This record gives sequence, structure tokens and C-alpha cells, in this order.
Amino acid sequence: MKQIGMIGLGRMGANMVRRLLRAGHDCVVHDIRAEAIAELAGEGARGATLLEDLVAQLNPPRAVWIMLPAALVGKTVTALRALLEPGDIIIDGGNSDYRDAIAQARELRRQKLHFIDAGTSGGIHGLDDGYCLMIGGDPQAVQSLTPVFTALAPAGGWLHCGPAGAGHFVKMVHNGIEYGLMAAYAEGFNLLAQADRGLAARPADAETAPLAQPENYPFTLDVAAIAELWRHGSVVRSWLLDLTAQALHENPTLAGYSGHVADSGEGRWTMRAAIDLGVPMPVLASALFERFGSQGQNVYANKLLSAMRKGFGGHGEKPVDPAAHDIRPGD
Amino acid sequence: MKQIGMIGLGRMGANMVRRLLRAGHDCVVHDIRAEAIAELAGEGARGATLLEDLVAQLNPPRAVWIMLPAALVGKTVTALRALLEPGDIIIDGGNSDYRDAIAQARELRRQKLHFIDAGTSGGIHGLDDGYCLMIGGDPQAVQSLTPVFTALAPAGGWLHCGPAGAGHFVKMVHNGIEYGLMAAYAEGFNLLAQADRGLAARPADAETAPLAQPENYPFTLDVAAIAELWRHGSVVRSWLLDLTAQALHENPTLAGYSGHVADSGEGRWTMRAAIDLGVPMPVLASALFERFGSQGQNVYANKLLSAMRKGFGGHGEKPVDPAAHDIRPGD
Amino acid sequence: MKQIGMIGLGRMGANMVRRLLRAGHDCVVHDIRAEAIAELAGEGARGATLLEDLVAQLNPPRAVWIMLPAALVGKTVTALRALLEPGDIIIDGGNSDYRDAIAQARELRRQKLHFIDAGTSGGIHGLDDGYCLMIGGDPQAVQSLTPVFTALAPAGGWLHCGPAGAGHFVKMVHNGIEYGLMAAYAEGFNLLAQADRGLAARPADAETAPLAQPENYPFTLDVAAIAELWRHGSVVRSWLLDLTAQALHENPTLAGYSGHVADSGEGRWTMRAAIDLGVPMPVLASALFERFGSQGQNVYANKLLSAMRKGFGGHGEKPVDPAAHDIRPGD
Amino acid sequence: MKQIGMIGLGRMGANMVRRLLRAGHDCVVHDIRAEAIAELAGEGARGATLLEDLVAQLNPPRAVWIMLPAALVGKTVTALRALLEPGDIIIDGGNSDYRDAIAQARELRRQKLHFIDAGTSGGIHGLDDGYCLMIGGDPQAVQSLTPVFTALAPAGGWLHCGPAGAGHFVKMVHNGIEYGLMAAYAEGFNLLAQADRGLAARPADAETAPLAQPENYPFTLDVAAIAELWRHGSVVRSWLLDLTAQALHENPTLAGYSGHVADSGEGRWTMRAAIDLGVPMPVLASALFERFGSQGQNVYANKLLSAMRKGFGGHGEKPVDPAAHDIRPGD
Repeated sequence: MKQIGMIGLGRMGANMVRRLLRAGHDCVVHDIRAEAIAELAGEGARGATLLEDLVAQLNPPRAVWIMLPAALVGKTVTALRALLEPGDIIIDGGNSDYRDAIAQARELRRQKLHFIDAGTSGGIHGLDDGYCLMIGGDPQAVQSLTPVFTALAPAGGWLHCGPAGAGHFVKMVHNGIEYGLMAAYAEGFNLLAQADRGLAARPADAETAPLAQPENYPFTLDVAAIAELWRHGSVVRSWLLDLTAQALHENPTLAGYSGHVADSGEGRWTMRAAIDLGVPMPVLASALFERFGSQGQNVYANKLLSAMRKGFGGHGEKPVDPAAHDIRPGD
Repeated sequence: MKQIGMIGLGRMGANMVRRLLRAGHDCVVHDIRAEAIAELAGEGARGATLLEDLVAQLNPPRAVWIMLPAALVGKTVTALRALLEPGDIIIDGGNSDYRDAIAQARELRRQKLHFIDAGTSGGIHGLDDGYCLMIGGDPQAVQSLTPVFTALAPAGGWLHCGPAGAGHFVKMVHNGIEYGLMAAYAEGFNLLAQADRGLAARPADAETAPLAQPENYPFTLDVAAIAELWRHGSVVRSWLLDLTAQALHENPTLAGYSGHVADSGEGRWTMRAAIDLGVPMPVLASALFERFGSQGQNVYANKLLSAMRKGFGGHGEKPVDPAAHDIRPGD
Repeated sequence: MKQIGMIGLGRMGANMVRRLLRAGHDCVVHDIRAEAIAELAGEGARGATLLEDLVAQLNPPRAVWIMLPAALVGKTVTALRALLEPGDIIIDGGNSDYRDAIAQARELRRQKLHFIDAGTSGGIHGLDDGYCLMIGGDPQAVQSLTPVFTALAPAGGWLHCGPAGAGHFVKMVHNGIEYGLMAAYAEGFNLLAQADRGLAARPADAETAPLAQPENYPFTLDVAAIAELWRHGSVVRSWLLDLTAQALHENPTLAGYSGHVADSGEGRWTMRAAIDLGVPMPVLASALFERFGSQGQNVYANKLLSAMRKGFGGHGEKPVDPAAHDIRPGD
Repeated sequence: MKQIGMIGLGRMGANMVRRLLRAGHDCVVHDIRAEAIAELAGEGARGATLLEDLVAQLNPPRAVWIMLPAALVGKTVTALRALLEPGDIIIDGGNSDYRDAIAQARELRRQKLHFIDAGTSGGIHGLDDGYCLMIGGDPQAVQSLTPVFTALAPAGGWLHCGPAGAGHFVKMVHNGIEYGLMAAYAEGFNLLAQADRGLAARPADAETAPLAQPENYPFTLDVAAIAELWRHGSVVRSWLLDLTAQALHENPTLAGYSGHVADSGEGRWTMRAAIDLGVPMPVLASALFERFGSQGQNVYANKLLSAMRKGFGGHGEKPVDPAAHDIRPGD
């Protein structure tokens, strides 16, 4: 049985504590939200309202796992440094920039503290399926936490990837790939959803590209059924497809979504690394840029395109076709 | 002096007639809008209310130039065929699919009619600057129209590119390139317009990638002045940049544009050719897809991405940041 | 028990026959290679050296499944038409253009023959796992073949998607997505494989972008172990990742591959549909264009870029860095 | 008349000195290559073998212009700092990272030195046409150099864009756009060069996408003549097209080029800014990635794609078609 502190009891942190508790580990938990602490205390964890409490409740050498948004990790590490003792270990399990891990490990080493970056994948399903853990840090410190990693991950689901930063680097690339996979499905399903376009009429003017051969787009496809179908024996089967099939099954018209897709940093960092190294990543970049576009960041560029078109061709803008915004697959 | 019939007196056709009249040619003009005929009749052209009139007013061997949207060319050619005689020439100067030109030339040849495809670039500025003409068709027919091409084009501005279809093929690629050039400028100016982002605050949560080093984005740039600057001695100077500078000078905030950018077929046909031939065109494809996105055709895909994110991470969508839609460069 | 004819005993067709035989169906098989027929005859199928034999050995209403390269399907259908009788069914299970299916079904209908397009996924693993079948065609004909589809597919692995063409349309999009998924992994693993670049020196001249902060790329990653890791609990787990992990396990340096990646048509057709419909597909297009590039189709474009650079900057080309071509992950 | 020191007498620096001398300015010049100094000394400049000499020959307040590869600017600024006095100005005219300019200006300000970043475009043609200058820095220092900027630039060809860093930021985006423009032309001309593909035969097997409708690609186009044509009246006319036409005129087969296209940093920095700010730049990214690919950085990814294809489909690689590498437009 290992003892571990957990800071940050959001979607990820709370479930990781639950998984550790189930495996018989001793968890001391902290969050800025008292009710989050209380909830896990009710499930067997020991609560700590202050960082000082958390540190005090752990026996040295301590292991403190931080599960916070990237923007909050730095100040938390700084606060912990003042409280920890040589030999203690800080683990950052969030979606932090791996460069921070390299810098933090270097800094903490001066104080004889260990820093471990533990890239964590699995989302809300990790509670039951286990989390895939990509670990960076000193071999000794990593080894000492083997029981923790084993409890969190499914069989085969954790790896010591290399020195500090390697874990978050691998997680970063993992998320970059994830963006690409998601976009591949999204683009494909978008095409399926529009395969009935030949059934509708279409204006013929100089501003609109005519639909060549509408007879080739006569299909009203059941997108949800196709997602489900592909789960069985197809080359594109995957866990993301499982989720997609479930999402389309529950909400075939995707009602309630606006199409504003956030990105949480790791896709950007992947691209930054690609640029630093001169590695071409057109697919992952396109996936990232689709998200930027969905966030409205292409509006200025598009307005300028319209202004140029007016400049050389006297073209006015056509009003947006409202039907294009209101696709209803499966209706 | 040559005699020529012109069908279609829109932005392009009317100005081409004017240019031909200035060069002393005899023009018989037709349009479905009587007022368009009347206007050019007042400038020295001979009007023809019906296609039959137009043909009757021309001496054989006739040359009839069609300047219509791609979707209307086919039926006009069909109508003309019934009226013309062996040795007559039909010229399609619009943005038609070059494949149609190949097919039409083959068809008309049976009737001993000539078909010439004349890709025409220059937009509303062609009246003064001349039009760049990309010509396909039988050498003899092309040669017989040399005075017409010379009157329409500036010095060096017309070329017999090859057999029927070659003119529209070259024009198609021209427009594909045009899309790429426009997008390159639009993306670059978009970045310039957002270089002041570091001056504003930004939320720190798990759903938003934090702006790393806001101190690197402190610039409130005068985008219009930069467009003007680049016209003088820079590597990126071009006619499209001239237009961009003028557009930004007249309307620095791009007020009145929604950012819905139409596409008129040639970009798509360029891509189709690239795909047929296995030629990579990531830049031109990206430019085309940006337009499709601006037309709202990515909404389903983006909604599905949001649904997937909810599926694995429990992420809800964030409301779109209205500020992102309301960039005001130069304010 | 159903009776079925199979034409084309390559990688896919032969295994599908085996799966049908195992399920107790009666298979008559044909191929231009006598040894392929003999092999399956040895496993319980009835061989037919000529199409005529195959048709003669089947009781009406017959079902003949074609499993051939797209380029050979048309002539085979034509040959079969002359031999079949009203009520018979032709199934095209290959990677054919769905537009051909639409046209063929229309044509065969005049002769009271049924045409079914059966997009088939699963590759060489389908023998054991079952094939995912995407079916288009008349409901009655499709229904009559239910026992065949059930034998070929795993549970849940076949779907009647819509009228003729719908099956191949869905399979086409499936393959388009597949290209995107594959490229997402390939790009990500490429970045992992190059994360040690900071350990090497790099020239500093005007022609080479300097590697900013080499200390950020100190990782010698075990790419094969990471592929295996991600199979367990990560968001990017998939069947393609299973294959990738196995490939990297067996051949960590990817020895023997040149990097020339073929494409077999469906990615192109997906893109053509996207262009017809104005649906943005930047990710799938990028994946396709990466393949075109790997086939050497960007060489002219790149030479022209070099010529332009020489034109404005007097830049000569640098020799290709041989090290860039000889990456050895895991060495 | 102004006095100015110039460090770095390469392609750009030497010609800038010439332009300053022609305008009657007093130039003190330095380079590590003695012959470069001697050459300009022969044209009226004063040579300085050592930085100390250069500084000693200038009257305070001095203005020293650095025209060196980005990788060498930092150490040169450091060396100059030790020699200069309060009120002196350092101008970096190279393709440096604008972030360095922000940092250097901050640092130099402590010593009461001014830092000006002067993004410089125009290439080897700037000697005659003038250079387009994008200036960042303190208004007073910028103003004091007005005669210098006026001598270097054509009319309208210089702009004070904002505080330190703004000049290099604008130049960075300029180059990002340049990459996009170049790629747009290169892709388009590549397509033109391959429009004769329908004249050749093509294999029909499962590994090669068949060329649909070869009759649509019967054009043997004179690519050089088309480049020249488009210079006259077309929408895509530009200075880069002028260079392209000249390059194709002189070397229609692009003999001697390998297609290895270097990138010099600014395209990467543009992309980094786009990623920091969440601004989509699919076109500029694609252009950059095409260059990375031309440098051989996609080989690992492509090998992995081949390995995956073998994994699911048993596909072997096809040998690269040597004809694809040896396109000869205009032959």
C-alpha cells in the first residue's frame, strides 16, 4: 500500500483517487472546493483543506500528485516546494507543457525534490477502464511509484518514457494524434450527412458553383447506424468511434451543440514541436486549424477575402444559406 | 476590323464590348436584359433582342462570343448551333468547365462549327488594363480572331494554349492559384490584425489554451498601412495586394462584410484535376476548404467534434467569445 | 444454406469464400489463375474455369459476387450480363467507384437483373474477425442475401445503407477516414521518432532555420513501446494502432520500406465528393496529398520553388541532409 | 548626409551599402571576409576589419546596421554593446526572430542604447528597385534614420510599424505570406506540367488508382509561356510571377534543381505566432510543410504508412514510378 496526495479533484483527479482507493492505497486529497474534498472523504480519502494539511498528513518521502489545468500547475508547484522535504516527489498528471516539466525538474533537483510528469489519458472512462499513463522522470522516483501507476492503469497501460518531460511530451503527441483522429471522423461523417444534397434544388448564378451531377448525391444515410456498423470488423474501428457511435445514437441530430470546439493546448504544443524540428504535420495542423476556425478566429481573414473579391470582380457577398447550418441527418 | 457577336452583357461582357468598340470592331450584342442591350447600343454596338437577330446581323464566317455563367453556357451553345453555319465560330469566354469545352468542340466539329474556349481574367479592371486571355481551339479559327484577342488583351496578354479545352484548363488553374494567393494574404493579414492579443486578459481554465507569453503580442498594427507598404519593393507585391491595400484603405474595419466567401467552380475543378492526376495541392485545397468553411459547411463536423469531446472528457462547449468575432484592426 | 458464385480469388475474395464455406454455404469460384481455383476447390468450393461454367453451376435466382480491382469490374459485369437471367443478382464487393454502381444498377435493371454494391472492410484479418459490409441495392435483393452477409460479417457488421451506390459510397468515406486516421498516427510517430534531434549539432547559416532551444528535444523514445502503451486505456486506441504497434514491434526501424505509399482510389473519390458538395475536408485531403507527395508527384513543384528562391534571393539549393533520410528510432 | 555602419556584406548587406553610397551617405563597412570589405571600399565605403574600427570610425550618436544570418545576430549585438555609447543605435536588418528584438531592445534600453528592427524585403533586386523596410523601435531613433530608410527604400517603401519587434513581426508575416504565394504558384504550375498525363498508358491493379477519363488530360502545355502570359492583365500577376516566368524562360525543364527547398525561420515563426494566438493558417502551414517534406522529413511517416498498409491489407510497396520524377514540361 502506497500513500499519495492528490491536488485537484475535478473530473480526472476525483476518479483517479477513487481508483487508488479501490486498490487499497491511502489518499490525502485537496481542492479549492470544500465539497469536492468532502465527497471523496465520504469515499475513504483523507481530506486536506490547505496544502499544509495535505503535506502534514503524508509520511516522507511524500508523493503529491497534481491534477490541475496547465495554467495553475506552476503556482501549485511553487507553493509545494516551500512545504516539501528532500526526497519528496511531485507528480504533474495534467495536460501541462512538457517544457515546463523539463524546467521544473531542473529547478526542483536543486532542492533534492523529484519531479515526475505523468501524461494521463482516458477521460471520464478511466475510472472503470484505467488510465493510460506516460511517465517521465528519474528512474528511481518512477520505480518507487510503481504500485500507484499499476493501480491507475490497466494492464500494459503505463510506461516510463524517459527523463523529466518525456511523459508530457508523449502525452502531447498523443493529443495531437487525437485531434487528427477526431477530425478524420468528423469530416467523414459530415460528408455522409450531406450525401442527400442532390435531392434538393440549387441556384445557378455566377456566385455559386453548380452541383455537378446531382444524381450522384441521392443518399439519405443513417449516420448513427453507420457509426455503429463500422465498430464491427472495419478498419476504422476505434475507441473514439465507439464514443461517436454512442453520441450519435443518443443525439442523432447533434441538438444543443453550436460547433464551437475548444482546444486545450496540447495540439498547439505538438505543432510547435513540429515547427521547431521541421517535421511536416499537415493532418494534425489541419485538425487544429479547424478548431481555431470553429472558435471564430477566421472571420477577419474571410472578410478580407470578400473584400478582395469585390475589389477585382465587383462580387458582393451572398447571404449565407441557412439550410447549410441546419443539417439534419437521420430525420 | 472584325465583326463579333457578344452574348451576355454582365460585368465582364459589357466591358469587353466597350474595349472592342474602342478598337474599332463591329459588335452585335445580346442579353436577356433589354436595358443592357440599350446601354451598349448607345455606345456604338448593334443590339439584338433575339439570338436569331444577332446571328442575322453577322456576316459569315461568324464569330459569337458567349460571356455567361457556366450553368447557362450549354443551353446557349445548343441554341446557337441551330442558327449557325459551317465555318462559324463559337467562343466561350466564361468560367466554364474545360471538360465541357472538350465535349462541345467534339460535338460542334461534326457540324463544321469551331469552338474556342477563351479563359478570361482581369475582372472589372480589364476595361482599362486589358484582359488576360487563355485560348484553346483549332489553330486556324484562333488565328482568324487575332485582331479580337489583340483588342481585348494588353500587349503579351493572350496565348493560344492548345486544342479545345486548353484555354479553360489554364484559366481553371489560374483561378486555383488565385484562391491560394488570396488565402495567403488573408491569413497573413488576419495574424497582423491579432498581434495585439497580448494586451488583453484571457481566462485560465482547462477548456482554453492559455496564451503563452502575452508579452510577445503587444502590437497594434495599422493593417491598411502595411498592405500599402508591401506594394513598394517587397517580395509579396502583386496586383491582388494592390486591391487589398485599396480595400483596407477604403474600409479599414471591413465593415459590412460577413465573411461568407463564395466560390465559383474553378477552384473545385482545379482540385478535381489534381485528384485525377495524383498531384498534391495542399495549399490550393486549403484555400478552397477555407471558403467552404466560411459557407457554413463545417458546422456538422464541428458539432460532432464537440459531441466526441463530451463523450470522452465530459467537456461541455464554451460559448463563442464574441470578441473574437469583432476584431477591429486600426481602430 | 445459400449458393453463391465468387469471381476474383485474391487476398480478399479467397478468404471470403473460406468464411462462407465454414458457414456451410455452397460456393462456386472463378479466377483467371487456375491455381487459385484449385486451392479453394481443395477446401470445398466448386471451381469454374470459365464464367460460363460458374453461371451454369448456380441455380437461379443466382448470386454472383465480384471481388476484383475497380478497373476490372466493368468488363466483368458486362460479360456476366450476357450469361445471367432475370432475377439474378450481381454483387460488387470491391473498391469500386460508387458512381459506377449507380450506373450499373440502372443499366442492369432494364434486364431485370439486380445489382448490389457491398463495400467490404477488414483486410486480411477479415477471415477470422469477419468483414464489415456496407450494402447498397434493392431491399428485396439485399434481404435475400442475408445469410451470406451474416456469414461474412461479425455480429452487427453489415448494414443495408440505401439504394444502389450507397454501399460503395459509405465504403468510400470509410476509406477516406482511414487515410486520415493513418496519417494522424504516422505524423505523430514521426515526431516521437525525432524528439532526440536536440542531441545533435546543426548548422547555422542563412539557408537553415536554426533549432531553437535544442534542450527541448533530448528524448530518445522507444516508439514501438509507446505504440503498445497507447493500446491500453488511451483515447487514441484503435485497430489501426494495434497494427501499428505490431508493425513497430516486428520491425522497429521500418527496414525495407521506401516510404512510397500507394492510394487505391477511394480517398480520391471521397475528395471528389467533398468538392462536388462543397464540404471542407482539410484533414482527409492532407492525408491524401501526403501520399501523392510520397509518390514523387511534388517534385516539379519543389523544383519550381527552388527556382523562385534563386530568382529573388540568389539562394542555391542545399544538398539534402542524408541523416534526415535515415532516422533510426529505437536504435 | 547620414553616417552609418554596416556589419555583414553578403548578398543583402553589400547591395544596401551600394544604395546608401549612391544616395551620398557615408558608410563604414565590416565583414569577416576581408575581400568583401575590400570590394565595397573600392566603391566608396570605408572598411573596418574589426568591430572596434567600425565603431571608432563613426561619430556619435552612431547607427550600426547588422545584416547577418539570424543565428549570428545575438553575439554581434553583445559585442557591439561593449563598444557603443548611450544614444547610439543598433539596427537589425536580418531575418531575426521578432521576439529577440523585443528582448534586445529591453536589454539595450538599460544601457541607453536604441534597438531598431528593420525587416528588409526585396532580395537581390533591391539594389535597383529599393528595399521594402518594416521598422520597429523608439519613434525618436526611427525618425533620426529617416534619410537612411529613404535611401534604401523606393517611394512609399518604408513604414514605422510600432515599438521594438514590430518591424520583424511584420517581416515575419510577410515571409509567411511569401511561402504561401510561392506554393500556390508551384502547385498550379505542377498541375499544368502534368496535364499531358492522359496521353500515356497507366497500369490497372489494386494498388494504383486508375486515371479516370484520360481524355481529359491531353494537353502538352508550354508552362513558361503561360507564366509569361499571366504577367499581362491576369488576376494572378505579381512580382513572384515575374521571377517565375523568367526562371522558366531561362530553364524550362528546371534542370539542375533537386527540389530540396530550404526554409529560413520566418515561416516557422509565423506559424508559431498563429498557434500562440489560435489563428488558423492552413494555407501558410501547408506551404511550410511542403518545404519540410521536400527536406526529407516525412520519410519516417511514409514508411510507417506503408507498414500499416501491409498490416491490414498485406499490401507491399510498389516501386516509385521513375517517370514521376522526371517531368519535362515544354519538351
